[in-house]
Amino acid sequence: MGSSLKVVGLGPGDSALLTPQAQKAIADADVIVGYTLYVDLVSDALKEGKEIISTGMMGEMARCEKAIEVARSGKNTVVVCSGDPGIYAMSGLIYELAEEYLDTLEIEVVAGIPALSAASALLGAPLMHDFAVISLSDLLTEWDVIEKRLKAAAEADFVIVLYNPKSKRRDWQIEKALDIVREVRSADTPVGLVKSAYRNEQEVIVFSLNSFDISQVNMLSTIIIGNSSTRMIGENIVTPRGYLNKYRK
Amino acid sequence: MGSSLKVVGLGPGDSALLTPQAQKAIADADVIVGYTLYVDLVSDALKEGKEIISTGMMGEMARCEKAIEVARSGKNTVVVCSGDPGIYAMSGLIYELAEEYLDTLEIEVVAGIPALSAASALLGAPLMHDFAVISLSDLLTEWDVIEKRLKAAAEADFVIVLYNPKSKRRDWQIEKALDIVREVRSADTPVGLVKSAYRNEQEVIVFSLNSFDISQVNMLSTIIIGNSSTRMIGENIVTPRGYLNKYRK
Repeated sequence: MGSSLKVVGLGPGDSALLTPQAQKAIADADVIVGYTLYVDLVSDALKEGKEIISTGMMGEMARCEKAIEVARSGKNTVVVCSGDPGIYAMSGLIYELAEEYLDTLEIEVVAGIPALSAASALLGAPLMHDFAVISLSDLLTEWDVIEKRLKAAAEADFVIVLYNPKSKRRDWQIEKALDIVREVRSADTPVGLVKSAYRNEQEVIVFSLNSFDISQVNMLSTIIIGNSSTRMIGENIVTPRGYLNKYRK
Repeated sequence: MGSSLKVVGLGPGDSALLTPQAQKAIADADVIVGYTLYVDLVSDALKEGKEIISTGMMGEMARCEKAIEVARSGKNTVVVCSGDPGIYAMSGLIYELAEEYLDTLEIEVVAGIPALSAASALLGAPLMHDFAVISLSDLLTEWDVIEKRLKAAAEADFVIVLYNPKSKRRDWQIEKALDIVREVRSADTPVGLVKSAYRNEQEVIVFSLNSFDISQVNMLSTIIIGNSSTRMIGENIVTPRGYLNKYRK
């Protein structure tokens, strides 16, 4: 094997949630590649002395191509992603673009705490039972496909985790998604909104399905919609796994 | 606030995947409560000088009740779980059992790298698009509900992550689940099996949907079934997000 390319998950961004494996991958790298906002999440100490290649929002293809090119030139390279690099992030595109180089380029995915786990921890325990994870971004996926998945998940009573609910240019998808769920789920179903988890700007808000305020949603939001069993325990959203039903009734 | 109870995710078990936040929660605790296998994953150095309360497999209720009792007595207590404590683990049951004590008992969930992220990282990039997470354990959930969710997830073309595919007393669910997916998905759909991720006994095996060998599945397995776009890139399972379709065709 020649050079090494690692796709590294930073988790929410706080270094307290960065795994030692991810920290070491970054420390061992010669070059850090990433979207500007994610590179900013890496501590200055960890970045010191390294080449940094950061690009703006729409440069995913160019960024991954650049990372592959740099790694193939013999420099240990990391692509940093927020959350888990394996969930709606860069690991797939890296494999696709590096397909013809796999004989000589070693690619490794270094997991990070995903946004769904961070949001769940801050909301209580909403993901104790089966859940579906759906991105509301229709930039790369037809809305019909997203809508079909929302309907299927709602009807089969999955807890639903929404990624990418809104962006500057996409603002109507979240209301549409909630309307689909409202058709089959009760008005008081708990819905949690987590913004900027474990960052200074963190906000955690609990709504009911019918009181959800879409104006509160921003680009750094993860939304978790409860299933038919989900209820509030204190200020926490909890989806019972079923222990009490089985052992106490 | 009085005493503190933290439900802590160990991730796969390797200390390289334990977050500093989780490490600190354990280090700060007086008492560690957990299923024996999970307590064994905590390093001896981290356990030194602490009270350990570990119990066998079927004691979830008793274990959580004990943890709440000990925390209420004024000792800083952690309940350790493998993976993420918020996904099919103990955080929900802790909230349910502690409901009447929430005024005086501070509960915190400390996220860990979930099994789905660990399995995904080892398989390549199977979770680049919408996915459904389903537990095949019918100990606490009617099989009808599980089957309904499998059908819905298969028909709506979700990538499917299976937790708890098999145990000593449950061996037929995995074949049934695969049969449900086979009705709508092509025979050569990649299916990844990850056993004991990031532990010494780790095994990563890639099958096609029709060649899947259920005899390989054990209690420490996570299975990821691709969707209609999922394909092999080298030895890696990759579900394209759609960048190449959009920007190269």
